[in-house]
Amino acid sequence: MMLHLAAPLAQLIENLQRLPGIGQKSAQRLAFHILNMGEKDAAELTQSIAKAREKIRECSVCCNLTEHELCPVCSADGRDRSTICVVEDARDVLALERTGEYHGLYHVLHGTISPMDGVGPEQLRIKQLLTRVAEDDVAEVIMATNPTVEGDATAMYISKLLSPFGIKVTRLAYGIPVGGDLEYADEVTLRRSLEGRGPI
Amino acid sequence: MMLHLAAPLAQLIENLQRLPGIGQKSAQRLAFHILNMGEKDAAELTQSIAKAREKIRECSVCCNLTEHELCPVCSADGRDRSTICVVEDARDVLALERTGEYHGLYHVLHGTISPMDGVGPEQLRIKQLLTRVAEDDVAEVIMATNPTVEGDATAMYISKLLSPFGIKVTRLAYGIPVGGDLEYADEVTLRRSLEGRGPI
Repeated sequence: MMLHLAAPLAQLIENLQRLPGIGQKSAQRLAFHILNMGEKDAAELTQSIAKAREKIRECSVCCNLTEHELCPVCSADGRDRSTICVVEDARDVLALERTGEYHGLYHVLHGTISPMDGVGPEQLRIKQLLTRVAEDDVAEVIMATNPTVEGDATAMYISKLLSPFGIKVTRLAYGIPVGGDLEYADEVTLRRSLEGRGPI
Repeated sequence: MMLHLAAPLAQLIENLQRLPGIGQKSAQRLAFHILNMGEKDAAELTQSIAKAREKIRECSVCCNLTEHELCPVCSADGRDRSTICVVEDARDVLALERTGEYHGLYHVLHGTISPMDGVGPEQLRIKQLLTRVAEDDVAEVIMATNPTVEGDATAMYISKLLSPFGIKVTRLAYGIPVGGDLEYADEVTLRRSLEGRGPI
C-alpha cells in the first residue's frame, strides 16, 4: 500500500502492474495518463478491451484468433492448403506473415507443453492439428515453435504423433540471426548454425 | 492496417499503442494478454479504469489527486502548514513523500508553462497557489518543478508572482545525483553542482 495515494488510483496502478512488461513506474505513468485522458479516448480504450474479448475467438480450422468462423488466412484465396505451419501463438502468425515468404496455412497451439507451469498436451490445440492432418490433404507440416526448451520439446512431441501419417515434417532452421554478431552468438546457436551450413 | 489481424484486436492494439511508453510490440503483447485474461481479472481492469476516472478529483486546497475533498497530505495531522512545495504533477508528491524528509504541504500545478504545447499559466493551478499564499499563513514556498527548460521557466514565473507577498521562495538544489559518476555528468549539472557546493 503506497502512502498518500487515493485508493481508486492505487487500485488502477495495481491492476496495470499485473500486465506483462509493466513495472511500478510504468503503471504509475499509465494510470496518471488514463486519468488525464479525454472522456472519448477513455471510453474507446475500455470499450476496445471489452469488444476484443467478446468478439475474438479461435478459427475453427487453425485456432488462429479471428472474429469470424474462419481466420483471414484460412479464408483467403490462393494459399497452399497442403502445408501447415505450427506456431505457439497468434503473434507468431503475424511475424511469419510479415516475411511475405510463406503461403501455406497455420496451426496455432496456444502455448507449449510445460509441465512446470502445469501445461500438458491436452491444453494445447494438438488434437485439432491431428484431425486436420487425418482429414485434409496435407503434404508437409512445418514446426515453427520457439527455439526454447519447451518449444523444442513440443515440436518433438508433435512430430512423433505425426509420424504414423507418413507426411513430411520439417522445422525452421536454427542459425545466427541476420545482422547479428558472431562474437555475441551463444555456443549452441553457433553449433546449430555450423551443422546447418549450406552452399553460398 | 495490419494484415491478417481481426478488426477488434487491431483496434485494441491501436488504442493501447496510444498510451505513453507503449510501442507496437508492447501493445501487441498487452492485447494478446488481455484476450487471454480470466473474466474476473479483465472486468477488474476495465472497472478500475472507470472507477479511478470517476472518483479521482483534485484536492480543493493543493490540487493533488484525491478521492475526497482534501488529499491525504492536506488532511493529515502534524504537517507543517507554513511550507508549500510546488510540483508539476501528483507523481512528484509521491516521489517527495518517499524521501520521508518533507513534512510541509504541496501544491500541484498539473503541468508546466510550455507555449510550444499551447500550455499557458492559466492552464496551470497557479491562481489557486496565489490564493493560498494570500489567505493562509505561508512562510516558505519551495519550487520543485523539474530541472528542465519548462520547469525552470515555470518556477521563475511563479517566483516573480510571489515576490510581492514577501515570503521566502526557495528551489530544490541542483547537483550531481548520489551514486552518479562525475565523468558522465553533463557540464551544466556539474557547473550548478560547483556553484552550490557546501562544507563537508
